[in-house]
Amino acid sequence: MFKKIKSILIGKAIKSTESEHQKFSVIWGLPILSSDAISSVSYASEEILMVLVPVIGMASYKPMMAIAAAIVCLLVILVFSYRQTIDCYPQGGGSYRVASENIGRIPGLVAAASLSTDYVLTVAVSTCAGTAAITSAFPELLPYRVGITLFLILVLTLGNLRGIRESSILFGVPTYLFVFSILAMIVTGIVRVLVLGQVPQNVPVPQQSIQDISVFLILRAFASGCTALTGVEAISDGVPNFKAPSQKNAKRVLVMLASLVFVIFIGVCYLASMYHVTPKSDITVVAQIATGVFGRDSMMFYLVQATTALILVMAANTAFADLPLLLSLLAKDGFVARSFATRGTRLSFSNGIMLLFILSSTLVIVFKADQHHLLPLYAVGVFLSFTLSQTGMFRRWITRKEGKWRHKAVINGCGAIVSAITCIVLSVTKFLLGAWVVLICIPALICLMLVIRRHYDKVRDNLVIEKSGNELIHKVPTENCIILPIQSVNKSFVKALNYAMTLGGKIEIYHVSTDQAATEKLINQYRQLKVDFPLVIEEAPYRNVNEMLIAHVDARLARLEPHQMLTVVLPQFIIPKSWHYLLHNQTSLRLKSALLKRRDVAVISVPYIINE
Amino acid sequence: MFKKIKSILIGKAIKSTESEHQKFSVIWGLPILSSDAISSVSYASEEILMVLVPVIGMASYKPMMAIAAAIVCLLVILVFSYRQTIDCYPQGGGSYRVASENIGRIPGLVAAASLSTDYVLTVAVSTCAGTAAITSAFPELLPYRVGITLFLILVLTLGNLRGIRESSILFGVPTYLFVFSILAMIVTGIVRVLVLGQVPQNVPVPQQSIQDISVFLILRAFASGCTALTGVEAISDGVPNFKAPSQKNAKRVLVMLASLVFVIFIGVCYLASMYHVTPKSDITVVAQIATGVFGRDSMMFYLVQATTALILVMAANTAFADLPLLLSLLAKDGFVARSFATRGTRLSFSNGIMLLFILSSTLVIVFKADQHHLLPLYAVGVFLSFTLSQTGMFRRWITRKEGKWRHKAVINGCGAIVSAITCIVLSVTKFLLGAWVVLICIPALICLMLVIRRHYDKVRDNLVIEKSGNELIHKVPTENCIILPIQSVNKSFVKALNYAMTLGGKIEIYHVSTDQAATEKLINQYRQLKVDFPLVIEEAPYRNVNEMLIAHVDARLARLEPHQMLTVVLPQFIIPKSWHYLLHNQTSLRLKSALLKRRDVAVISVPYIINE
Repeated sequence: MFKKIKSILIGKAIKSTESEHQKFSVIWGLPILSSDAISSVSYASEEILMVLVPVIGMASYKPMMAIAAAIVCLLVILVFSYRQTIDCYPQGGGSYRVASENIGRIPGLVAAASLSTDYVLTVAVSTCAGTAAITSAFPELLPYRVGITLFLILVLTLGNLRGIRESSILFGVPTYLFVFSILAMIVTGIVRVLVLGQVPQNVPVPQQSIQDISVFLILRAFASGCTALTGVEAISDGVPNFKAPSQKNAKRVLVMLASLVFVIFIGVCYLASMYHVTPKSDITVVAQIATGVFGRDSMMFYLVQATTALILVMAANTAFADLPLLLSLLAKDGFVARSFATRGTRLSFSNGIMLLFILSSTLVIVFKADQHHLLPLYAVGVFLSFTLSQTGMFRRWITRKEGKWRHKAVINGCGAIVSAITCIVLSVTKFLLGAWVVLICIPALICLMLVIRRHYDKVRDNLVIEKSGNELIHKVPTENCIILPIQSVNKSFVKALNYAMTLGGKIEIYHVSTDQAATEKLINQYRQLKVDFPLVIEEAPYRNVNEMLIAHVDARLARLEPHQMLTVVLPQFIIPKSWHYLLHNQTSLRLKSALLKRRDVAVISVPYIINE
Repeated sequence: MFKKIKSILIGKAIKSTESEHQKFSVIWGLPILSSDAISSVSYASEEILMVLVPVIGMASYKPMMAIAAAIVCLLVILVFSYRQTIDCYPQGGGSYRVASENIGRIPGLVAAASLSTDYVLTVAVSTCAGTAAITSAFPELLPYRVGITLFLILVLTLGNLRGIRESSILFGVPTYLFVFSILAMIVTGIVRVLVLGQVPQNVPVPQQSIQDISVFLILRAFASGCTALTGVEAISDGVPNFKAPSQKNAKRVLVMLASLVFVIFIGVCYLASMYHVTPKSDITVVAQIATGVFGRDSMMFYLVQATTALILVMAANTAFADLPLLLSLLAKDGFVARSFATRGTRLSFSNGIMLLFILSSTLVIVFKADQHHLLPLYAVGVFLSFTLSQTGMFRRWITRKEGKWRHKAVINGCGAIVSAITCIVLSVTKFLLGAWVVLICIPALICLMLVIRRHYDKVRDNLVIEKSGNELIHKVPTENCIILPIQSVNKSFVKALNYAMTLGGKIEIYHVSTDQAATEKLINQYRQLKVDFPLVIEEAPYRNVNEMLIAHVDARLARLEPHQMLTVVLPQFIIPKSWHYLLHNQTSLRLKSALLKRRDVAVISVPYIINE
């Protein structure tokens, strides 16, 4: 039943040998690996305005352009830094790998923890923003935004459990459509404003605020805009997915990605200031610009909204591809549960996908699908992992001293310093808005990973065979001591007895008496079996049958020879309908788990199947 | 930890031999067995008024007296009927026993089902009414009535799990105190009204309604008042608890009980009409009368309230004593889960007590501790069991024809007919108010009991040994076929192998390969053990290790000789901290339960304990 539903939802099992991976050319690698970075532009300018407008009103647009310029500078530095990472890591240079290889285990785990929280937030933020794009076009859907967002996450989960191949057309076309429509919007807007001189109509001009612009305000706006840079590291992670020459292609795509982010981000910010757009709760900034440029009912308006929603969903999908992969790396290193390294029936890392589904859905429900509440939590982790990755590269250069290492160390050092500063700015300005949650989560995750690793180490130490395995094999098998508990003489008991007789050991039948009459009946029935194994009877004045049996087992264990084991044979009857188990004492289950905690007790269940 | 809490809450275990039962004299038997019946009087007059006053206002008091007289007549008939039951059942004549012995299995189950629902309702109704008595005295406690009621139920549950002996003083004194204070109230009231001619003061006189009094209204008021008769059967259930001559004493107590109910019920109804008491949501009728007679701040007012609350809690306690006993009878007959017949550490039927706790608490929470909503559900079951018990007695007389059987059959026949008529009146007039719930619950319970009995019968048929048991014992033990699955060569596996070697059978090591490299490493390590058992390796292209193993077991099963069994030895490592199990695959658990469903597979768990 469960299997059938599963196979309908996610498809039939795939053989391990059918695993394959498509390689990207530059033309498809760009859209597929950069959806996260490009899509984040759609909410970055809105975030800046949300900080500025409530304080300084219509005076916001100039500082916004300055902040956008600063963010673009940051982008340029990151691009140069990551080009060097691509050069050094042809097998893919994720922050976890770069940091742990070059700095150490703990920085690696910090990167892993911050990346993990970020992937979860990427899914939540992107799907919420996607829903916002949809509800901006269709305001009547606004009351259902939590449901719509959860539906999007569910579709992504099922798709990834099914194991969506990174199909060029499915994943590349939406990004190009978005780039096309947003560029069309920017060009049309600029032409209308600058060339045709059309003053935007129907734009409400709120009252100008006269407060001073504080440094903290600017920093906070800058921090909010930094969400535009999330997803930049995806290309250096994905180097091996490029067609040869893979590193060269990856670097090309990185530069193209940066150029696109540059043009779109600056363009959107510029149009926002031209059209005096202010952030509203029911319509996004991009949708307001599109309304201003194309008009509310034009096809282009709907195209911009549709492609924005699509690319945001694609961005969430990259997290669905990357977090399970990261978790599988961590699982192989023993930092998270091993089950995250197991591939499901469809070869996807299904446990990681399910975990991401649960966590991101919870966030969406808790934050009522409002990405503005989620974004303060978002970028801290990204910049923390940037910092660690760049610091790792810096240490690599100054330790290995290969080639033009001084020059390269300066570039990565620069990257590390700017990322670190940004990270601090983000933490401080957004601390009270929610960044504190992340700053608690990351250390907690690291502790958890270390505890898990310690556990796996202990288990391995316990299990590993140091000396030649042959010495551990007992040359002379010891005699078996068998205890067969009995409650009444019935077919199930007789079956267990017949089985115990095949084991060739000393059998003892053991009964705990709670009722004189029943015990006498039992003795009589046992005599009729005409077998000559001793029947040991103990009285349980407190009716604690299991405890008596366990005490008896413990007493026998004390008298065992070295290497000898005690065998407890438990007759167990099996009932077809599982609710019927409510009608029977589950004492044998509790008994079993108690017995298994004893080092030298083997427990045998002999099933007796009840026909109905 | 859990054990410690348990022993603090309910005390240390008691030996089976320490079971004892106190016998009652008339003087203590009366209060102990009649708290249910006497206490119900405290809300019966209120229920009658609640039906009449909203329709006919101040004209209610005359019909109320007539209805009270009718209910008292019903009581007299029941007393005569139950005297005969006491004569015939010196070992206690509960409805379940009388109906099943004399009419048949299904009527017995109907009686059992209706009694069970009634016991649950008794607890809920009595504790709610007890809380109402408390909040009438202290109106500031009104908002906490659900909490107070649940607390009362919890105290009763813990007390009964502890195994309260039916201590004369603890249980008898509150009843006598109640009887004393309520009689004092009635006498004082009558003296003040009739002798001293004091007209009650401060009594609001609502507008007189002029509507006609319909027959249906009178019947509905009658039905509401019938709750006064609940608990009358308790004495015939408890005959063996009386000192010799037990039947004579029981009959005496029955008559005394009836007289008390008669006096108190008529007295309360009379005073209610004299003081023009109308039902209110925040103060009970008894409390209003007590206010009128003694004044709001007198000590007697508080005494009446306190003793009313106490006797109502005692009444709930009788259900805590009787339902677990009924369930244990049903369990012995196989109509409910056998665990209800097991005595807990303190010799009480702890499972029945826990069930009663859960059900009555749920009712209290659902109905927000308002007994007026619960009472319509209440009396139907009582009168159904009266009817069946009396019909049983009637059939007993006309079948056995012993002594003055004609005379006695007429009395029990009368009792049966009146009970049946009352039961029908109750069902019809209160159907929409909630009686329909009971009329669905009772058949559902009966079906459930029959299904359970059928299951137990099937299990017994499967297990019982018909022929001489000796024939079932295999004279020549067959050879053991042992399969030992392996994932990697480690100490846990070696331990399981050493153990398997003691079993003296043909051992096969079985490995499912999902990873070529890992399998080759395994083969090498296995060679180093230098044992010569065959290592069977199967490829799992779909990574479904468990399914492959089960298929292999099934293939081997098909080739077994008759009576031969297959043994699967599972190395199982045991981790001290239970949350660490999250870090390990639980596949072996699922494997075990799948293997146990196969008729001829014995599963052996060999524990390997991991030290931390």
